[in-house]
Amino acid sequence: MNFRLPVRDLRSTLPSAEAHGAWDGEITGVASLSNAGPGDISFLGNPRYAREVADSRASVLLLPRNHPGRPRKDQLFLLVDNPSMALALTCERIEALLRRRPSPGIHPSAVVADSAFVDPTASVGPFCTVEEGARIEAGSVLRSHVYIGREAIVGADSWLYPQVTVYRYCRLGQRTILHAGVVVGSDGFGYESGREGHQKVPQIGVVVIEDDVEVGANSTIDRARLEETRIGQGTKIDNLVQIGHNVRVGRHCFLCSGAGVSGSARLGDFVVVAGQVGIAGHIEIGDRVQIGGQAGVAKNLPAGSVVTGTPATEFQRERRIQALTRRLPQLFERVNELEKLLSSAALSGDRED
Amino acid sequence: MNFRLPVRDLRSTLPSAEAHGAWDGEITGVASLSNAGPGDISFLGNPRYAREVADSRASVLLLPRNHPGRPRKDQLFLLVDNPSMALALTCERIEALLRRRPSPGIHPSAVVADSAFVDPTASVGPFCTVEEGARIEAGSVLRSHVYIGREAIVGADSWLYPQVTVYRYCRLGQRTILHAGVVVGSDGFGYESGREGHQKVPQIGVVVIEDDVEVGANSTIDRARLEETRIGQGTKIDNLVQIGHNVRVGRHCFLCSGAGVSGSARLGDFVVVAGQVGIAGHIEIGDRVQIGGQAGVAKNLPAGSVVTGTPATEFQRERRIQALTRRLPQLFERVNELEKLLSSAALSGDRED
Amino acid sequence: MNFRLPVRDLRSTLPSAEAHGAWDGEITGVASLSNAGPGDISFLGNPRYAREVADSRASVLLLPRNHPGRPRKDQLFLLVDNPSMALALTCERIEALLRRRPSPGIHPSAVVADSAFVDPTASVGPFCTVEEGARIEAGSVLRSHVYIGREAIVGADSWLYPQVTVYRYCRLGQRTILHAGVVVGSDGFGYESGREGHQKVPQIGVVVIEDDVEVGANSTIDRARLEETRIGQGTKIDNLVQIGHNVRVGRHCFLCSGAGVSGSARLGDFVVVAGQVGIAGHIEIGDRVQIGGQAGVAKNLPAGSVVTGTPATEFQRERRIQALTRRLPQLFERVNELEKLLSSAALSGDRED
Repeated sequence: MNFRLPVRDLRSTLPSAEAHGAWDGEITGVASLSNAGPGDISFLGNPRYAREVADSRASVLLLPRNHPGRPRKDQLFLLVDNPSMALALTCERIEALLRRRPSPGIHPSAVVADSAFVDPTASVGPFCTVEEGARIEAGSVLRSHVYIGREAIVGADSWLYPQVTVYRYCRLGQRTILHAGVVVGSDGFGYESGREGHQKVPQIGVVVIEDDVEVGANSTIDRARLEETRIGQGTKIDNLVQIGHNVRVGRHCFLCSGAGVSGSARLGDFVVVAGQVGIAGHIEIGDRVQIGGQAGVAKNLPAGSVVTGTPATEFQRERRIQALTRRLPQLFERVNELEKLLSSAALSGDRED
Repeated sequence: MNFRLPVRDLRSTLPSAEAHGAWDGEITGVASLSNAGPGDISFLGNPRYAREVADSRASVLLLPRNHPGRPRKDQLFLLVDNPSMALALTCERIEALLRRRPSPGIHPSAVVADSAFVDPTASVGPFCTVEEGARIEAGSVLRSHVYIGREAIVGADSWLYPQVTVYRYCRLGQRTILHAGVVVGSDGFGYESGREGHQKVPQIGVVVIEDDVEVGANSTIDRARLEETRIGQGTKIDNLVQIGHNVRVGRHCFLCSGAGVSGSARLGDFVVVAGQVGIAGHIEIGDRVQIGGQAGVAKNLPAGSVVTGTPATEFQRERRIQALTRRLPQLFERVNELEKLLSSAALSGDRED
Repeated sequence: MNFRLPVRDLRSTLPSAEAHGAWDGEITGVASLSNAGPGDISFLGNPRYAREVADSRASVLLLPRNHPGRPRKDQLFLLVDNPSMALALTCERIEALLRRRPSPGIHPSAVVADSAFVDPTASVGPFCTVEEGARIEAGSVLRSHVYIGREAIVGADSWLYPQVTVYRYCRLGQRTILHAGVVVGSDGFGYESGREGHQKVPQIGVVVIEDDVEVGANSTIDRARLEETRIGQGTKIDNLVQIGHNVRVGRHCFLCSGAGVSGSARLGDFVVVAGQVGIAGHIEIGDRVQIGGQAGVAKNLPAGSVVTGTPATEFQRERRIQALTRRLPQLFERVNELEKLLSSAALSGDRED
């Protein structure tokens, strides 16, 4: 990392921050309280680290307004309502320096069909292929080795990292972020099976990704058999996630790494799917459902459910069951004891006859 | 999607269909009964949706021969033996319009070694690399950004989507479909471990994929340590599946998304491996075995087994165990009760002495 | 596979081998005892296959020093201390013939920024992109379609297979091997969530990969939010593995296919993580911990732990619990019996009153 952010530029990003101290240099790094050194900015995001502030060698510190300490010489405190949010804004500013936007235009090595439309403000990088009739809207960036299939659409202000593939006819909304290796629009896994083998069922639907969706590296989203697979606005998908054909994911969901959603499942809005969860086909999952890591969901879940385990079970109940399962050795022992007791009681009863 | 299929062309695809009604336009879409509009074709695949036929606005409807209703004005009914199969044939026809075959020949941007063979009827797209001694057989399509290693073979009429990598010496059969990001022939995960760390064991075998295999996006198939990793004829592999080194998968298997097969495991023919299943190394799995989602298989399974769970257990038995596990809280309660009863019985017995 | 290794070259690789027999040709293949034919080399790695030696048609056999048999006519026995190790050395020799090193230099199709440094002994293949300020150190190979982001560093003698992406500022150590489709440095999965949706938290840290690390096909390693995600020296990562942001993996670990390590988790040295394991965020895992396949780890694990299951439990205990779980149907039956007995005892007791 190699950037220089003058502290006065930072202060224009955080206009309501209350400044204490004299440091007025250029910020050249971001680090935690204990790792930071001169030139770094750091922050107190969690009160339990408050005592680390006094020893931090950071040049600039983002702190809560009620922080009691005082800056050292050559140190600047910026007191804000929410240090974590202030750090996020700071990092956005820094990221704009680090992840420089490529110049608009089409790299000479790119292969763009005559009938494709590339907005003049968009950037198409080296070795990109843009097929016939595709559209790259204003302000979008195709980094390098990106493939955009026939008549596919990349919405405005999107950012596609290297090695992304968008198959024919798929449509990405505005501000879509696709990380390296993402595949959008591969064929759904559909076959007619017989004794002789499996006949491929053509997958002639598409994938539609609404605005403000981010998809992590090497995740895959299959096109619908007919009609569309749809990812709702604002949904965030982690790395190595699989979305099957005809799936509908609602708005503002999280799907964590390794999760798999089978064909035709439907997820509501604000659903949270933790890592390595499997969701069976044709399942309906209501709004704001939360599914714990590695859970297996094979039944519909009503809105607001919080579940985990396989089969997915209400969270507290599943935790209790997992704890009891771990006490099975004792339970078997206790039942053995009971049987012994009863059998000796029965024997003594017999003797009485 | 943007296609036009004249209804007379469709009827030549479905020669035995019995037509009722007058519509004679161009089909421009495919949709479910309730979503279809003018220009669309729809179908009744499941009798329980039969009452939706009367309200469907589709221009063409594929229906079972015994369907009682009559078409509306400007609507065409095509009565067939199996509407789902008729739809598959229709979709194949439409897909040929949508997924246009690129022209034969080598794109000027591709890098093809002098000693490689590319059949004149094959198509090698932009930014493809074909290394020395590789062979691309008749009618095959390498879409874009495809890498074919030294002396690898792509069998006739195969279709490789963008960003596919086939490592050196691997061999793909006829009509292979590899979706975007598939990797065939990466090194198996083999090391000699010692106190100082791990020494790589060279992986000098290959991957052989037999005819009619399809592999989903971003799946990976490792080359053998020696000899070969083999995928049998007609087997279908979903997205994000891992096949370890030396594995042998039989003919006409299904491996669903997220499944992982560890090194040297062997699967018979017509095996079905559901999503996120893990199969341990050196396991033997017989013909027609079915393994439920997220199962963990660590022991051999005889032909015809139907299993699920971790460790994988006969299906009905595992379902029962899962149900009983969820009744553990009550079972602990019942054992508590029994112990109380016996202890009070013992006490009352003591009192009698 | 197509190679020719004269037997005298092999003997220079295995100088302490004791030779018996006359064969002096060129080795053209490697195979198991039962599959080998003329021209092949084979080996006895496991004593239980010793009786297969006599029937093997291999031209050269690597055998333990105490092997009692004699070579056939036109066959060469090489007696060594450790046939498996001798085979590994042989295979390394063969691999050097098969996986030929591309010539040094930059392929004319590659796009390398003026400010990037490519050592003259390095090889940058077709369609590679090397961004501004990046460094490709001596002896490294970028195969084809490799993307190296701004100011990223590829250490000496590394080998990056096709379609690899290394994001900006990330650093790879010496002798790094990245298989096809690996992504290093994608954004961590971090958002500030509110009622209106999720605000992206910029990920301005990097990934640092120490020396001698190998990463399998299509695996993904996220950059840190701040500071770094780090993979320790000599660690080996299999295919389709996910490493979240801020994770620290120690030295000489194994992470098998499908494993996922959530953000900020820390692994010690020589940790073994089996296939499809999930590790929760912010977990600490001590040195030499071993985690069984599909386990779910949600708590810290002290050094030397051997665990499996979800939640991860000491191995022998978990195995016992899994076995007892499978005996739950009988346990319920036994408790039913006890209840019947007690209830009839109580009834008979009542009658006695």
